[in-house]
Formats: sequence, structure tokens, C-alpha cells
Amino acid sequence: MADLDPTRRYRFSPCMHTLPASFLDELFRVSAVPGIISFAGGLPDASLFDFEGIRRATDAVFEEHERSALQYTTTDGYRPLREIIARRYYTRLGLQISPDEIQIVNGSQQALDLTAKILSCPKDTILIERPGYLGAIEAFSFYCPRLQPIPPDEEGPCLDALKTALISDDPVFLYGIPNSQNPSGCTWSQSRRKEVAELLEGTGCLMYEDDAFGELFFDGKPRQPVMRHLPDQVMMSGSFSKVVAPGLRIGWIRAPAPVLAAFNRAKQAADLHSNLFSQMILTEYLTRYNPDERISVMRREYSERCHLMIDLIEDLLPDSVSHTHPVGGMFLMLTLPDQMHSMEIFKKGIQEGVAVMPGVPFYVDGGGTRTLRLNFSASSHEQITEGMQRLARVFQGL
Amino acid sequence: MADLDPTRRYRFSPCMHTLPASFLDELFRVSAVPGIISFAGGLPDASLFDFEGIRRATDAVFEEHERSALQYTTTDGYRPLREIIARRYYTRLGLQISPDEIQIVNGSQQALDLTAKILSCPKDTILIERPGYLGAIEAFSFYCPRLQPIPPDEEGPCLDALKTALISDDPVFLYGIPNSQNPSGCTWSQSRRKEVAELLEGTGCLMYEDDAFGELFFDGKPRQPVMRHLPDQVMMSGSFSKVVAPGLRIGWIRAPAPVLAAFNRAKQAADLHSNLFSQMILTEYLTRYNPDERISVMRREYSERCHLMIDLIEDLLPDSVSHTHPVGGMFLMLTLPDQMHSMEIFKKGIQEGVAVMPGVPFYVDGGGTRTLRLNFSASSHEQITEGMQRLARVFQGL
Repeated sequence: MADLDPTRRYRFSPCMHTLPASFLDELFRVSAVPGIISFAGGLPDASLFDFEGIRRATDAVFEEHERSALQYTTTDGYRPLREIIARRYYTRLGLQISPDEIQIVNGSQQALDLTAKILSCPKDTILIERPGYLGAIEAFSFYCPRLQPIPPDEEGPCLDALKTALISDDPVFLYGIPNSQNPSGCTWSQSRRKEVAELLEGTGCLMYEDDAFGELFFDGKPRQPVMRHLPDQVMMSGSFSKVVAPGLRIGWIRAPAPVLAAFNRAKQAADLHSNLFSQMILTEYLTRYNPDERISVMRREYSERCHLMIDLIEDLLPDSVSHTHPVGGMFLMLTLPDQMHSMEIFKKGIQEGVAVMPGVPFYVDGGGTRTLRLNFSASSHEQITEGMQRLARVFQGL
Repeated sequence: MADLDPTRRYRFSPCMHTLPASFLDELFRVSAVPGIISFAGGLPDASLFDFEGIRRATDAVFEEHERSALQYTTTDGYRPLREIIARRYYTRLGLQISPDEIQIVNGSQQALDLTAKILSCPKDTILIERPGYLGAIEAFSFYCPRLQPIPPDEEGPCLDALKTALISDDPVFLYGIPNSQNPSGCTWSQSRRKEVAELLEGTGCLMYEDDAFGELFFDGKPRQPVMRHLPDQVMMSGSFSKVVAPGLRIGWIRAPAPVLAAFNRAKQAADLHSNLFSQMILTEYLTRYNPDERISVMRREYSERCHLMIDLIEDLLPDSVSHTHPVGGMFLMLTLPDQMHSMEIFKKGIQEGVAVMPGVPFYVDGGGTRTLRLNFSASSHEQITEGMQRLARVFQGL
């Protein structure tokens, strides 16, 4: 990785030399230019956070726990919080999960890192959706795996491709986001979840089911996870980053006991434990306030923004540009006609004052030159309207 | 690792099979038994935390930053906090360090993990003091290195052993805690720091200088780090866990630019960024309150506890038991006569109601059967007195 150290003075682990080039730095830099309307990021809308509720919960933590909220704690995580997470699985999805099956992590990103750490060795195959979540690609790449993309059909990952990969590649795990995927915005059908579980069952391939967006379906109806069909082979992560607040950096993973034991060991070595103060704040918050009302406001708001964005795509962009039809989450994806290139749209977009995310980094096998990810959660209706007009001018100018 | 999955149903990364057995679980379990006085852990005394100051700082964060304190942020860390850290290096040690040389992490434990991740590959040699810090041994072991211990003499790591290892093992880095080491409680002399820097200079071996305890010298006088002599080859970590509060999980690392760039990439993949809310609380706290007064109370208190413990060791334990002479930090080490075994003392200690830490896990090449680590920071004077009397009964009963 020549750009890491042009002087070649320092030696780095081989993994550092095989990492995909990071586009994120440039993206953050240009998106922060004043006046830019950014659909390129992936932030929830901070104005929808329950600021006063979190503040009161914080006061309560100081009152009730005093200094113990500031001390070291155990690696597995604050037990009352794990009990709340387990209870929510039951009330939302009817799933019987014990708090002992749950490990607290620093946002579900950490679960991606630690999962690859405990399960894979260099050149092992990890299966990932095509396109796949960039944070997962980045986390896994540090362990030098072979990332094998599984293309989608209308219902989720293509079963034939999955079957072939399971037979020929002996993958260690399949990574997927069945609910409102990042970057595509697509949701697996209920039957596809069962079919994927049936294909995996009895193979040596686990599944990492990333459920960052399961509470953000616009219709408010929960979908059953793959884990329900195959609890002994599926790890499932969740996060408070989208529905409460990402700055607290608290997520979790539920895994079969032997996997969780290995995961706990890796978590201890990685950073001893997650922030106790934040874990207690979330516990107080979720105990005192029913978050469902707040989450339903988020759902309604994100749904309106998504539909506004889709209306503007259909009104303002060329008919040759197609889009996905999200039923939840924070993202949708555009597909461009053959002659266009997503990097060109990105660069011209910056000149017009609108940032979009080129699809390229989501495709581990190349490709993505004709896709763009748009985030609709972080922008107001006015920003979406103005931003889409700017994007329309980019297309008009091609 | 048979105990991870007796069913052998799950496949794990090879690193999981080469990890040293973890003694910590048993230790935590027995130390939590009611009535046990524990010298086995490594906690700061929560009663010395500036609870009211941190609480007021938290209120100020809510007032001044509102929702932005709860949003995602950049990987490098909150810049005003990095500015404070850089400024403290100048006021404490006269070191000119830029905030751009600093990366925020989840307590310095995370810096151990990410350093091994970016610098080492399996079978690479990492040099570590003998005995060495257990958290570092655990973090490094996930990357399957060859851990080569460097024994100490009275002034720090033995120069001959270091020289030999540099020539014969081509190590990727030397890990050490020059200030009040965990577990020994020993401090490197000022001249040894310079000599180590001179030996390392121009080799391919970096140093990871862990400065968890540099602000806790009983005499309040700072010691110059190895980094001062060799800034291009030394990474240095620090932490707020000992001097403000560990539950916030905020530490940092200062590294040469190319190493920091790789580190930043690894941090982003590991968990995107550290807890923003905690970073802001620390920033407010350190801006509003001079922590030095509080830290000097900690120093005085830990010094008294250390000296009380040493007096009791000399009064109550057999003359054949020797001890280190800490000038700071939170730990001291006992060396037992030939016929005694630290695991026996540990087990009988539990029966008498006192927990000590056997030296075994600190020695990567075996050994440590005749050493015990004692923590003096977490116990009151009364607990130290009663606990040492219990320990004396263990020795009497051998």
C-alpha cells in the first residue's frame, strides 16, 4: 500500500497491502464542503433523536449508579441492557432469546470485525451480497479473506449462486442484511429467508445476519430473521445507532453459545468492554420510555423522505435511470444506463453541490460503475428537493 | 481449543486454538465472592473519581452540543480532546506533539489490538517485558505472533537480551510499560530509556510504549518517555482510565504519521469511531477543571496504600518473600521462595478470603510460578490491613 508509507520506512502486516483503496476519506472531505447537499453518507437524522429522554436517562444514571457508572465492568456487557434486548426480541418478533446469548459491542461494526477475527483465516471464503455493505467489506478485508459475492434476484440472494458457492468454496460464513440492505435498500422475501436457512443447514457455513434496519420498516411490521429458522448457525447483530443514537456506540450480537464464547474472548482482547456509562444510559432510557413511539416517528419521516426522493427521481432524472423500491431503512440505489459512469456523476455532482455515493466500493469483484447509493434519512424535504434538482442538472449536462 | 466447542460443530480461526488459556474468568468469579478482599484485580479506586466534576461536564455537553453529541463522528477522534492531550504532553513533559499525531481509541487496550493488527503477521516476533502485561499478551495472541520475552535487570529491559533479540529475531516491535509496569510495579531508569532508544534506532523494530501510569508517580515528577529519544520509531499510548474514569473507555495513541494512517484505517474497520459523547464529556471536564489537583490526591492515596502494603509484607510475611519497590502506579510484585507455588497461594488465599494474582499468565515462556501480583489501588487501608493478615495466615499454613 504505497500511499501508506511512500518512504517505505515502516513494515506493515500483509493485510494492509491487500486492503481495497478507501474512497471514504475523499467522500467525507467533499461532503463537508459548505453548501453541499449530501446523499452520500449514512447518518440517521439527529433531529429525530429523543434528546430530552436521553438527557433525563443520563441524569438518572448519575443519581442511581453514581461512581459505579464510571468504573470498569465485565466484557459481556451490562446485564440489564442485555435483558432489555432479549425482551425486545420477544415482544417484536416472538423470539425466545436469553440475555446470556447476547454480547454488547461498540456498534454493530465491531461485531463485523470480531466475527471475521474468530471465524476466518487468510484465503478463507466469506460470502457477501452483491452489492455488499462497505463497513463489512472493510472489516473483513483486514483478515485477508476471499470475498465471494452472491448476486441477488428479486427475493434476495440468488439460491443457485449460493448453492454453488457452498459446494465449491467451503465458505466460513455468509454475510447479509435481509432488512432494507445497505446499499441497495432491498429486503429479502420471507420465503427466501427460509430457503437460505435450508441451504445453509448442516453445512460448515454460518450466517452473519446484520439487522441494523429491522425496526425501520415503513409499514412498522417486523420481518422474521433467518436466525429464526436456523438459530444454531446464525449470528445476528443489532444496534441502537439507528433508533436511539449512534454516538453512544452500542450494538450487540446474538450467537450460538460456542461462537459467543469465542467472540467474548476476542472482545476482551480488543478493548476489555464497551462503554459502561452509555450502556447504563440506554438501559435507563429504554426502561423509562417506550422507544416505539419515537421509532414510529422515524419510520414515518424516513418513509416520506424515501417516497419524495423516488418521486423526484421519476420526475427529474432520465427514464433510463432505474431505482430500487425500499420498504424501510435509509438508502435506495440507482442504476444508470450503459454509457454513464458513477464516478463521473459523483464528480459532477460535487460541482453542482450534491454528493452521491458511487456504487464501486460495494462490489468486491469490480463493477458498480453504473450504480449510485442515495441516502434519504439525513436530509430534510427541502434538501431532498433541492438536491435532486441539482442531480437532475448533472444528468442534463452529460 | 477444545473448551470453546466440545461438540466440534464450529470451525474457528487457527488463532483461537493457540490462545493462552484464560485464567481471568476464574479470577473474576472467585474475586466476586462476598467477603473476599481482592488484591487480584487492577481497578482504580472509584471513590477518587471526580464524580461531581464529570457530572457537571456531562450537563455542559448536553447544553452546548445538544444532539450533535449523540451523532456519528470521524474516526480520528474529537479534535478538541486531541488538542487537550497534545497540550498536556507539552505542559507535563515539554513534548511538542500535534493533535494530528493522535488517534482516540476505546481505552488503550484497543491500541494494543490494532497495533498488532497493522504491524504483525503470524509468526512475526513481538518483544515483551518478562513479566509482561496480560492485556497485551491477550491482544497480541490473536495475531499468532511469536512472543519473545525480554528479562529485566534493575534499570529496565536487559540490554544484552534486547540486542540479541534485535539481531536474531527481526522483531516487528518491542512492547513495554516504562512507568510503573503492570504487573511488576517497576520503572525503567532514565538512562535505560535512552539506551533502549539507541539500540532500536535504525532497526526495523518499532516500540509500543504503554504509558498507562505516567501520571501516577508518587513523587508527582514526570519521567521522559522513550518516545522523546526516538519519535519516528515509537508509538505511545495513554489513557484516561486511571486518572479520570475507566467506564468512559477513552484512551489514545500517538504514532509516526505512516503508522497512524494505517492505525486509523484499522480503527475505522474495527468500530468506526470511539464514543463521541464520552469524548465530549472528557473535553468539557478537562477544560473546566484542572485534573492535576485530583490526580495528586490519587497519587498521595495510592502511595500511602502501597507503603502500607509493603510495611505489612515486611511485618507479616516470611523473610523469604521479597517484593518490588514501586515508585508509582497500582501494582507490586512478590517473589516467593523456591518451594512455594503461586497457584497454591491463590487457592488457599481464596479459602482465607483474600484474592491475589498468580504470576503465571504474565510469563509468555512459562515461569511465574513463584511470583504474585498485588494491586493496592482498589482497597482501603482497612482492607489492605485485613487482607494482608489473611495472606499472612495462608503463608503460616503452608
